[in-house]
Amino acid sequence: MYVLHNYFRSSTSTRVRIALGLKSLPYEYRSYALLEKEHQSEAYLSMNPDGLVPTLETPDGYLGQSLTILEYLEEKHPTPPLLPLDSAGRARVRSLAHAVALDIHPLNNLRVLQYLGDQFDADKQAIKAWFTHWVGHSFASVEKRLASEPQTGLFCHGDTPGLADICLVAQYLNNTRFDVPSAAYPTIQRIVEACLELQAFDDALPLNQPDAPVS
Amino acid sequence: MYVLHNYFRSSTSTRVRIALGLKSLPYEYRSYALLEKEHQSEAYLSMNPDGLVPTLETPDGYLGQSLTILEYLEEKHPTPPLLPLDSAGRARVRSLAHAVALDIHPLNNLRVLQYLGDQFDADKQAIKAWFTHWVGHSFASVEKRLASEPQTGLFCHGDTPGLADICLVAQYLNNTRFDVPSAAYPTIQRIVEACLELQAFDDALPLNQPDAPVS
Repeated sequence: MYVLHNYFRSSTSTRVRIALGLKSLPYEYRSYALLEKEHQSEAYLSMNPDGLVPTLETPDGYLGQSLTILEYLEEKHPTPPLLPLDSAGRARVRSLAHAVALDIHPLNNLRVLQYLGDQFDADKQAIKAWFTHWVGHSFASVEKRLASEPQTGLFCHGDTPGLADICLVAQYLNNTRFDVPSAAYPTIQRIVEACLELQAFDDALPLNQPDAPVS
Repeated sequence: MYVLHNYFRSSTSTRVRIALGLKSLPYEYRSYALLEKEHQSEAYLSMNPDGLVPTLETPDGYLGQSLTILEYLEEKHPTPPLLPLDSAGRARVRSLAHAVALDIHPLNNLRVLQYLGDQFDADKQAIKAWFTHWVGHSFASVEKRLASEPQTGLFCHGDTPGLADICLVAQYLNNTRFDVPSAAYPTIQRIVEACLELQAFDDALPLNQPDAPVS
């Protein structure tokens, strides 16, 4: 059985939880409080020298990097697939996923927002503007593609959820914490809502994790 | 024949040029001057609504996102491979590539450095510190892994260059523009030097492109 070393609120962790759920793979949940720097502990660093969550413990060893983990799970457990079978479709889905996972998320990570506060005296307003700026740039083009390309279905690519949906939903959940307006992205919103009706996505939600605060 | 829409100095463009070279795929080179915002022109955006370089023109349409393009080329032209054939090896190579491509490069992009200057009055010194900070975090763990893991060979994984080497070299070239010290990363440096002896890497160097300034 897989062991997922992660944190409820981390959106890269959310991505992996969704994928494990979609593929019906049971896993043990272990949590690391980022605000208390538990992912910088010697124990965590011995599994993953990057010092970033998540880490997936597998028969092939400890794997870091959420996109690496998603590709690994896809190779090991191809059904149900997170990527289409044709190269053009795979490239389309990866490019949508990467537009979110490379052009938005790395800029809006906790460690980056902390650096902006520490080194540039960025206040709450400035951090919100930063966060919203990078979401806006990529969400505008992702929305345009999803709204205009014929491959879009109930989900980003056809009528089954996959890699792009996973990255999109994890980012969307993150956006709500910074009050990013979503009215400009009706197709993204429609797809996120369709995803959130599925058990695998609901199970992976930050607030449904054992280390989430009791509301 | 492929057409690569790119910019000599862009390190995501360099990644794709190296991959095309390693796979001996001929391509037509088209350049877009980022400083003159040619990648924001209507013509460019109609190919790639992200407004980011590179874009690869393929029989399957226009592809954006360099990591998507690398995975596409690997699927279409599997020989010579950029990824090992076993899942554990593929995960190792992808995780090294992603540590650079997701945790360093998105933070040190031209558009991000411009935002820091415009919105936070970051001067040259502050931008250098920002750049060096993110390189240092990930390079320290990549160095540790490459120096200690038995799979490391002449290159990141065994004795043939692949996805991780491509991302590492493109980042390393970028570092030299910001005087990032490299003495702390002897294994990375050794691997980069081995790569740069290969024709495919040399051909892909920014200064060997048609749009590079004549020195």
